[in-house]
Amino acid sequence: MTDTFFSIWRVNVRSQTFVREPAPASWERLGGRALLARILVDEVPPTCDALGPHNKLIFAPGLLVGHMLSSCDRISIGGKSPMTGGAKESNAGGRTGLQLARLGVRALILEDQPQTDDWWVLHLSAQGARFDPADGLAGLGVYAAAPILTERYGQDAAIALIGPGGEMLMHAAGIQNLDKDGAPSRIAARGGMGAVMATKRLKAIVIDGGSGDKPPIADQKAFNAARKAYNKALLGHPQTTVYREYGTAAVARMCQAFGVLPTRNFSAGEFEGLEGLSAETLRQYLTTRKGCDPSHACMAGCAIQSSNIYVTADGQTTVSPVEYETIGLMGSNLGIADLDAVARMNAVVNDLGLDTIEVGAALGVAADAGLMAFGDGARGLELVEEIRAGTALGRVLGNGAAVTGQVFGVKRVPAVKGQAMSAYDPRALKGTGVTYATSPQGADHTCGLTIRAKIDHLGTEGQVALSRGLQFRTAGFDSLGACMFASFGFNADPAVVPALLKARYGWDADEGFVDWIGRESVRLERQFNRLAGLTPADDRLPEWMTREPLPPTHAVFDVPDADLDAIFDF
Amino acid sequence: MTDTFFSIWRVNVRSQTFVREPAPASWERLGGRALLARILVDEVPPTCDALGPHNKLIFAPGLLVGHMLSSCDRISIGGKSPMTGGAKESNAGGRTGLQLARLGVRALILEDQPQTDDWWVLHLSAQGARFDPADGLAGLGVYAAAPILTERYGQDAAIALIGPGGEMLMHAAGIQNLDKDGAPSRIAARGGMGAVMATKRLKAIVIDGGSGDKPPIADQKAFNAARKAYNKALLGHPQTTVYREYGTAAVARMCQAFGVLPTRNFSAGEFEGLEGLSAETLRQYLTTRKGCDPSHACMAGCAIQSSNIYVTADGQTTVSPVEYETIGLMGSNLGIADLDAVARMNAVVNDLGLDTIEVGAALGVAADAGLMAFGDGARGLELVEEIRAGTALGRVLGNGAAVTGQVFGVKRVPAVKGQAMSAYDPRALKGTGVTYATSPQGADHTCGLTIRAKIDHLGTEGQVALSRGLQFRTAGFDSLGACMFASFGFNADPAVVPALLKARYGWDADEGFVDWIGRESVRLERQFNRLAGLTPADDRLPEWMTREPLPPTHAVFDVPDADLDAIFDF
Repeated sequence: MTDTFFSIWRVNVRSQTFVREPAPASWERLGGRALLARILVDEVPPTCDALGPHNKLIFAPGLLVGHMLSSCDRISIGGKSPMTGGAKESNAGGRTGLQLARLGVRALILEDQPQTDDWWVLHLSAQGARFDPADGLAGLGVYAAAPILTERYGQDAAIALIGPGGEMLMHAAGIQNLDKDGAPSRIAARGGMGAVMATKRLKAIVIDGGSGDKPPIADQKAFNAARKAYNKALLGHPQTTVYREYGTAAVARMCQAFGVLPTRNFSAGEFEGLEGLSAETLRQYLTTRKGCDPSHACMAGCAIQSSNIYVTADGQTTVSPVEYETIGLMGSNLGIADLDAVARMNAVVNDLGLDTIEVGAALGVAADAGLMAFGDGARGLELVEEIRAGTALGRVLGNGAAVTGQVFGVKRVPAVKGQAMSAYDPRALKGTGVTYATSPQGADHTCGLTIRAKIDHLGTEGQVALSRGLQFRTAGFDSLGACMFASFGFNADPAVVPALLKARYGWDADEGFVDWIGRESVRLERQFNRLAGLTPADDRLPEWMTREPLPPTHAVFDVPDADLDAIFDF
Repeated sequence: MTDTFFSIWRVNVRSQTFVREPAPASWERLGGRALLARILVDEVPPTCDALGPHNKLIFAPGLLVGHMLSSCDRISIGGKSPMTGGAKESNAGGRTGLQLARLGVRALILEDQPQTDDWWVLHLSAQGARFDPADGLAGLGVYAAAPILTERYGQDAAIALIGPGGEMLMHAAGIQNLDKDGAPSRIAARGGMGAVMATKRLKAIVIDGGSGDKPPIADQKAFNAARKAYNKALLGHPQTTVYREYGTAAVARMCQAFGVLPTRNFSAGEFEGLEGLSAETLRQYLTTRKGCDPSHACMAGCAIQSSNIYVTADGQTTVSPVEYETIGLMGSNLGIADLDAVARMNAVVNDLGLDTIEVGAALGVAADAGLMAFGDGARGLELVEEIRAGTALGRVLGNGAAVTGQVFGVKRVPAVKGQAMSAYDPRALKGTGVTYATSPQGADHTCGLTIRAKIDHLGTEGQVALSRGLQFRTAGFDSLGACMFASFGFNADPAVVPALLKARYGWDADEGFVDWIGRESVRLERQFNRLAGLTPADDRLPEWMTREPLPPTHAVFDVPDADLDAIFDF
């Protein structure tokens, strides 16, 4: 059965023209990350300049998006990455996926570059696409820009926008998306898609989903039944409660126990100041301080609600969410044991539309270069304000850890394919090290985090197979539009995803669908990367991690290169 | 016949140990660039961190070095390049090659890294190798450091040293060498070998050639005859006279005529201010100002003497040499029509031990980013002083054009494999564009400059074959230790090089030897690069040069990719 509701929306930002067209047959059963990968392979010259006119910026809601199914309305945003030089998919919650789906957008493809330097707002509705001048928006942080945009376009629109970091073409620039409450806090953070959006000269994309329709459901009764089974499994999973109460910060203590908590620019795996950053401390603040919310949903209908709204003790700074990755990279990685200090940096970096992982890692490298003392949160805040000011130092930091390391001559740079590692030191979590090394996306925990697997994380045995399986599975969820944590629900009963797809589209998908579509994503991304010039030499952790032991385990990364190279012998 | 005079000197900078060993059979007939390439393939892990302990820094005099044969005592310095990520050979005149040859060094291989941050001087003599603390030398520019070193080690020693740029691990850092008069002005500039030397914690290498012997000559009479024929051809070549009188600056007018003179960050190919920079203006200054020398030899015995000693009108700045590449990159490329302004920047960049091509290109990119106005020499001088100060801006510039472009979000970056182009815009000189794109060294005119070829430089026809031939030939000269301009002498009679090799070593080399050894160099370098992760995607000019027409010819670079990829179908 062909789905006639969805189509491909193609917008040329140079001619400001727009066409809606049916998806080619080979794209039809793909969505989200898998569809992005397919479009990259089919349409983007792999060797093109990622910030040039031949790159495309693509928004693709996952296959389950559009129905407020818990944790399943995510948007995949991608193109060729200026940071890794390869395929990039970066996904986010918030409203963008849901409202694009309501307009029937399977993929929005932004092409070419304007010849002038004006900034534009792209407005999408059931009537089509329109370009409005981005009057008064250039240079604004997303916290200032978003209210102006919602004032102009209504409180209910979805908005994807860039901050000053994107405007300055920083490689750490992501694309912020409004959350369900209208805060511009759900960032497709990684790999520089904000810089790509800036080369299209779009400050924001406004999506009037209300002018569209709910996507049709082939068999509503069957859909409801499958949804019910999914919700039940999700709500019954103990981890759902942990994440609702403690958020992603719950993992910090586990990281400390395994000795993988990034500490002082990845020079140690445990941090004496953990208590100041722990999930328990976070929850105490969130449940007692005015204006906080300990269990906030980023997408309408989400049952997990792992997000939060954090307010500093002085009431001056509100940021949403404070997440583990930021706590790890801007807390322990900078030797800072104070959540308020982390939250202040977090808020600035969010406002600039930058990736907190990348900027946190860059700050760690900068601290190694003597630009800040480890533990000095006030100096950390000054440094992120340098980024806003666009000083030479700020521009270096905003381009990420690898560039910061090169410019300041720092040896200890935690990056793969030019992209900074998430908050898990791979020397003592070797499966995740395999993921960092071999994921076509560059170092990224969302491509296959192994920390919950029953395995000796210090051993090399079985890590490649573990990582491969998780890389496929997470790419599969990314293709459905499902949050990583939706796995708590889906993994309980492998019949649920096929049942949802059958009910929604009438497709006869089998229980291997998630793994199949995930594998297809990785295969296509690697195909793109190979033609873009990436080789096995890029599928490596930084050399110093194979040599420098990580306290307290004193582990080095020692999964053999040959095993890394064999991981995707498709 | 085996040459027992020469051996391999291997120094471990961590253990401060030293061994002399015979060259393996497969290295025996190689020298200079070809030997470097062979050692890289045999000994350096291609994927290693170029600034880590597994990289090696190698000094290899060419095969004809040691006899004060005119223009044939050059030293090849190389290793894995932190800038290109591939094989690097960077060569220089001065004393270093000659005195290493007198110690019987076919190759000096520096291995590993010390565990502490002290700086050392490596002293080489017939007695072997010794490490002396580099007391009082850290942080000094080469103009200050060289006199201290000659005071300590004698006026006659050869010295290879790094400046503050190398100490700061800047990717544009080269290795300066004393010229015949003791000035630290002959730089092995390109590709960051100064940063590699800094990771070995060597501020300087002092070579006491006087403690050694002249290399033996198998047949002195035959050698003298061949030398005589070579000298006669060299001196009889009209270009020798042009270079002696006008230096390399003579090519500026030719570049203007072809429309390839880099102007305002490669946005045009002709410069209205050429007269202020021309060879005639330069010669007028050099022949009338006190302290200048219009025809200076960088190596003892050189008959060409294309170098010069330049003093600014105010008598405040002396720099040697002012060469065409610097005039192009720091003059017209910055919109500066004043040789004194160029000379002032040149002097600072020399003192820092940096590559003037790379820094000039970085300044052009910085000007495009608004950091200086084109034509503002005083601001240019401030910017190079920022490098000395080690500010964030200075460190960006000292890392070269590609990093500067990334940090400041500039689209027009003239670089290949991360290395800046020399002073010839390849859009209107397409054979040189082929060289820039496909040379394993990155963009570099010394790897095959096509400007003197009888060809339509704007057409694509024949450019690949032209470039290939010149790439082999120049790599051949680099392996002999011969200056590019020695070709004026050698090309007249193809029997001369074989005669010299026969007389010197007793080898039966044929007339194809230069091309053979050059081809072997390129083949080995490409083998190393492929394993290091470079692919055809790296053998491309920057995309914008295929799109943005170059005034006044309005040419774009349009040699087909498939032709580039087929250039070295060995």
